[in-house]
Amino acid sequence: MTQRFRDNIENMAGYTPGFQPDDPAAIKINTNENPYPPSPRVFDALRNLTALDLCRYPSSMWKTFRATAARIYHVSPDMIACGNGGDELLAYLVRCCCDTNRPLAYPVPTYTLYPTLAEIQNCPTIEIPFNPDFSIPEALAHTNAPLTILCNPNAPTATFVPPAEIEKLARQLSGILLVDEAYVDFAEDNCLDLARRLDNVVLLRSMSKSYSLAGLRFGYLIGAPAIIEAVVKIKDSYNVNAATQAAAVAALSDQDYFYTTVARIKQQRRRLTIALRQLGFTVGDSHTNFLLATVPPQTQARTIHQQLAQYNIFIRFFNQPGLLDKLRISIGSAEQMDALIQALTEIV
Amino acid sequence: MTQRFRDNIENMAGYTPGFQPDDPAAIKINTNENPYPPSPRVFDALRNLTALDLCRYPSSMWKTFRATAARIYHVSPDMIACGNGGDELLAYLVRCCCDTNRPLAYPVPTYTLYPTLAEIQNCPTIEIPFNPDFSIPEALAHTNAPLTILCNPNAPTATFVPPAEIEKLARQLSGILLVDEAYVDFAEDNCLDLARRLDNVVLLRSMSKSYSLAGLRFGYLIGAPAIIEAVVKIKDSYNVNAATQAAAVAALSDQDYFYTTVARIKQQRRRLTIALRQLGFTVGDSHTNFLLATVPPQTQARTIHQQLAQYNIFIRFFNQPGLLDKLRISIGSAEQMDALIQALTEIV
Repeated sequence: MTQRFRDNIENMAGYTPGFQPDDPAAIKINTNENPYPPSPRVFDALRNLTALDLCRYPSSMWKTFRATAARIYHVSPDMIACGNGGDELLAYLVRCCCDTNRPLAYPVPTYTLYPTLAEIQNCPTIEIPFNPDFSIPEALAHTNAPLTILCNPNAPTATFVPPAEIEKLARQLSGILLVDEAYVDFAEDNCLDLARRLDNVVLLRSMSKSYSLAGLRFGYLIGAPAIIEAVVKIKDSYNVNAATQAAAVAALSDQDYFYTTVARIKQQRRRLTIALRQLGFTVGDSHTNFLLATVPPQTQARTIHQQLAQYNIFIRFFNQPGLLDKLRISIGSAEQMDALIQALTEIV
Repeated sequence: MTQRFRDNIENMAGYTPGFQPDDPAAIKINTNENPYPPSPRVFDALRNLTALDLCRYPSSMWKTFRATAARIYHVSPDMIACGNGGDELLAYLVRCCCDTNRPLAYPVPTYTLYPTLAEIQNCPTIEIPFNPDFSIPEALAHTNAPLTILCNPNAPTATFVPPAEIEKLARQLSGILLVDEAYVDFAEDNCLDLARRLDNVVLLRSMSKSYSLAGLRFGYLIGAPAIIEAVVKIKDSYNVNAATQAAAVAALSDQDYFYTTVARIKQQRRRLTIALRQLGFTVGDSHTNFLLATVPPQTQARTIHQQLAQYNIFIRFFNQPGLLDKLRISIGSAEQMDALIQALTEIV
């Protein structure tokens, strides 16, 4: 009798995505979505899709998006690769670099998809705790891993490591450094300049958060052509569909709209940070579209999480060591933040 | 110095998708696309996408598509999994089942993506030649491979193996039998009943061909819940975007439109088969939306392929042993077939 699935697949549990309430009136601030609509140009792009766009295969090499991104980021088109959300591109890079003898390294705590991808690829992980101030741990430079991932700004801590420190790390590594910048549009700096200069640095960007396109699943890499080439070799031939490519081009082209939306999120972030501190929560300054808040003394994070659900408000509680007294709250609209602050005032 | 990429990735060439001419007036019958537009309901679905559909993550478990497909195919929703085209689902199954010690088996000649997926996964392949009449070779039942793929109808031969023969194979295998039914809607029978009855059979269906949705990249599996569960474990959490899910539901719901389009393709297929035979080509009866034609004696397939390009007509020539005297021609619209037959009459 042949065993049907590989041992690592049999034994793994799989990644659990955040709860999706069915009620459209629910205040869903648990998965770092953007509460504001995407650019009107996105709706135009979807409306303008022709029969030929739909019945023919899409651009295999993401022609228009590459040209648009190259212009905006001042890189060459062959430094861009696109995927169905950042998750697909993370999986591609793990597949290019890692196997049973080639580990994946990253500092912890961080995005919990990384160990899941390692389980699927059946590669070892090297998890190095962040320094207490969430700067880069020195040991991360000495793992000899072919692929190191640094989520920056980091999830779920909302902290940010300055590009100068990341450059120091990249120069010590001989493997690839993937900087997961899914949240970087909400920070004050980024590693674009590093990706232009260093041949072992590749950035992951997402349109799910800052461009309000979580539903369309679009992410992209910016990095050295040799890294992009490896991804192109293993990607599905036509991985990104025509509707998503058109919408992504439309969203990226509308930089004014993008800046306005990001500014609105930052405004609510400031407001919620102050309100939570006044309620007794401990909250660091966030560089993302969410806050990681330590609950006030004599309260339980798990309980507050459950009580908020009674108000039809959904935030994220991580049932894991180091995070048991914390709650992760996505920044929503002004109205959603009003409701949250009101509810928390009644609860704590 | 750490080697950045795995050896198998360094050494592989990657899959080459079919040529995509930039000229919209080109007669593109080289990648088995459907010349007819998708159902009008697809355009409605895309137009009706709301801001909430776009700014929130899509259904992780393809809720509405599963319910719709379950109703139409008389299976339970947990027997369905969805992906970004059949290619993503093929890659998922190879990743679930195969590794350096666990081979992938399939009869040849067939879809050339299968060996590419094996290269990426770094697993051995067991390639068994089809019998001369393109029935299943006996040896395929005795490989002990955890995953066997049978493309049926087969590409690029356009031949069809009856479900009774496939059942015999499935009952001999203890591993999984994946029947790639990307073209099955153009055949007279399919393996749906087998997938319902046998726990080691899983079908791959595609909306690229029969539903005119190559641009939207949507495929799905129908098979035993245990197989679907393994795929769900390793898939990207939100692998299929909201626009594609909505369009796929709309297309599948419009079965009348689907049957009409398939009938139109079959009509042109009959017509082209007769015309090619009159021109001296040898053409078997096709069970797909393409023909594999052996060129007339004293002519060269490669030359005809090049000459047609001068007419702005693009078909597929495979530069590989066994296929050097053959051309693969996708079935286009009546007008496209007119132009092709006219051009071939002038050429041969």
